[in-house]
Amino acid sequence: MNMTTERSVFYISDGTAITAEVLGHAVLSQFPVGTNSVTLPFVENVQRAQAVKAQINALCQKSGVRPLVFFSIVTPEVREIILQSDGFCQDIVQALVAPLQQELGVAPAPEAHRTHGLTANNLGKYDARIAAIDYALAHDDGISLRGMDDAQVILLGVSRCGKTPTSLYLAMQFGVRAANYPFIADDMDNLKLPTALRPYQHKLFGLTIDPERLAAIRQERAENSRYASLRQCRLEVGEVEALFRTHQIRYLNSTNYSVEEIATKILDIMGLTRRMF
Amino acid sequence: MNMTTERSVFYISDGTAITAEVLGHAVLSQFPVGTNSVTLPFVENVQRAQAVKAQINALCQKSGVRPLVFFSIVTPEVREIILQSDGFCQDIVQALVAPLQQELGVAPAPEAHRTHGLTANNLGKYDARIAAIDYALAHDDGISLRGMDDAQVILLGVSRCGKTPTSLYLAMQFGVRAANYPFIADDMDNLKLPTALRPYQHKLFGLTIDPERLAAIRQERAENSRYASLRQCRLEVGEVEALFRTHQIRYLNSTNYSVEEIATKILDIMGLTRRMF
Repeated sequence: MNMTTERSVFYISDGTAITAEVLGHAVLSQFPVGTNSVTLPFVENVQRAQAVKAQINALCQKSGVRPLVFFSIVTPEVREIILQSDGFCQDIVQALVAPLQQELGVAPAPEAHRTHGLTANNLGKYDARIAAIDYALAHDDGISLRGMDDAQVILLGVSRCGKTPTSLYLAMQFGVRAANYPFIADDMDNLKLPTALRPYQHKLFGLTIDPERLAAIRQERAENSRYASLRQCRLEVGEVEALFRTHQIRYLNSTNYSVEEIATKILDIMGLTRRMF
Repeated sequence: MNMTTERSVFYISDGTAITAEVLGHAVLSQFPVGTNSVTLPFVENVQRAQAVKAQINALCQKSGVRPLVFFSIVTPEVREIILQSDGFCQDIVQALVAPLQQELGVAPAPEAHRTHGLTANNLGKYDARIAAIDYALAHDDGISLRGMDDAQVILLGVSRCGKTPTSLYLAMQFGVRAANYPFIADDMDNLKLPTALRPYQHKLFGLTIDPERLAAIRQERAENSRYASLRQCRLEVGEVEALFRTHQIRYLNSTNYSVEEIATKILDIMGLTRRMF
């Protein structure tokens, strides 16, 4: 193959193709190869599969290298069309089905392929996820300190340290109800844990961040303001970390972590169970 | 194996374990077997791996059936400990690495295992995702009709048809900037497309929902209100669908779809590219 060009990659599924993307991306990240990817979800019928096959074949012909295809399709006649394309096709789920069939001693009975779909079985869990999103929005940024009895975790931290995205991710991915409360500049002279939060000590979780990264993030929003100055960021982070230590609030430095990592670390540290969707 | 009890499943990773969960769940959904799962992220060192191995072995002994283990760990000595447990261990990534190595003609060079991690390479994309979340929140529920130039999609629909979770998911998962605008009861007498939205016809996307499901969702929030009555839900949905048709706004009935499915269908229909994180 030609190492100087990017390799084309297709993520294809009869569902959302999110699983194919995530797994294919994980596998490809192990190789020092540049890629150029296209995602094709909802390839559910023969007609669309034939169009996809034509797209793969055309790209193969144009580039002279066969595209990598990570796919997952349940219906055999649709799957077969993809397999007959000129791509290098890897069924992301099937590789694990055969060994599992032997272990379980049961034949697979795939129905519609809806890893991320709604079914009678998961509608209750799904509604709980949506309710968790509503909860996160209603208790974002200290909007309301009522309803903390219903929180599973209450995130604390300075403005722009990652509280809101983390709360939303906890709700969206795991159905966990997270509130968040910001410490603002005016609090800093005499920083205290709000009285309303004291009864919830066991639910509190602090986020902190390197002042340099915080200043860079704040600069994006309010260039050259006091709010975004390194001096102010250092002051706020220092005060808030001291408060976390005084009150023995568990905390995490979010600087080098993605929202997925922050959210899963919080669940792990607090011993909260993930709701699987 | 004993078919009457649930089979224990472990999702284990040196990262967030989100990929292991999603893929394992997809594979298991093909089998008519009840499961009982535990997720163990950040198994990054020998000490934690040994604790996990002990946990797997204890459960195996207690239940008399070996637990299923879907895992992904890069460091060989940590991986080896999991493989030596009494579980039925499936490496979710490795199964695809070998064929890919042959196809690419390059050896894998796994570094830290951070499918959902922050690196110098993806920090820009990550910041764009966080900016997309900020955008979705600032343009949620018609809060602001300014800044529509920056929207990639503007979702329209009645209250509680799924606009907000969809906007947030588009931002969180795909870094897509989505605004949303609600049609409320007071609009219904003379339903019009707001003047401010008319220049953005090509970005508009409608969500609709079955009135029965809508009434059930609204009942959860405002029992026995006019807002939650089936009559009102029917009226609003009918009016809004008519508006979508009049203005040739593409739309989707969200009733039977999850937020993942709605979001990916919108990207697909509108031809928007997903940002891979």
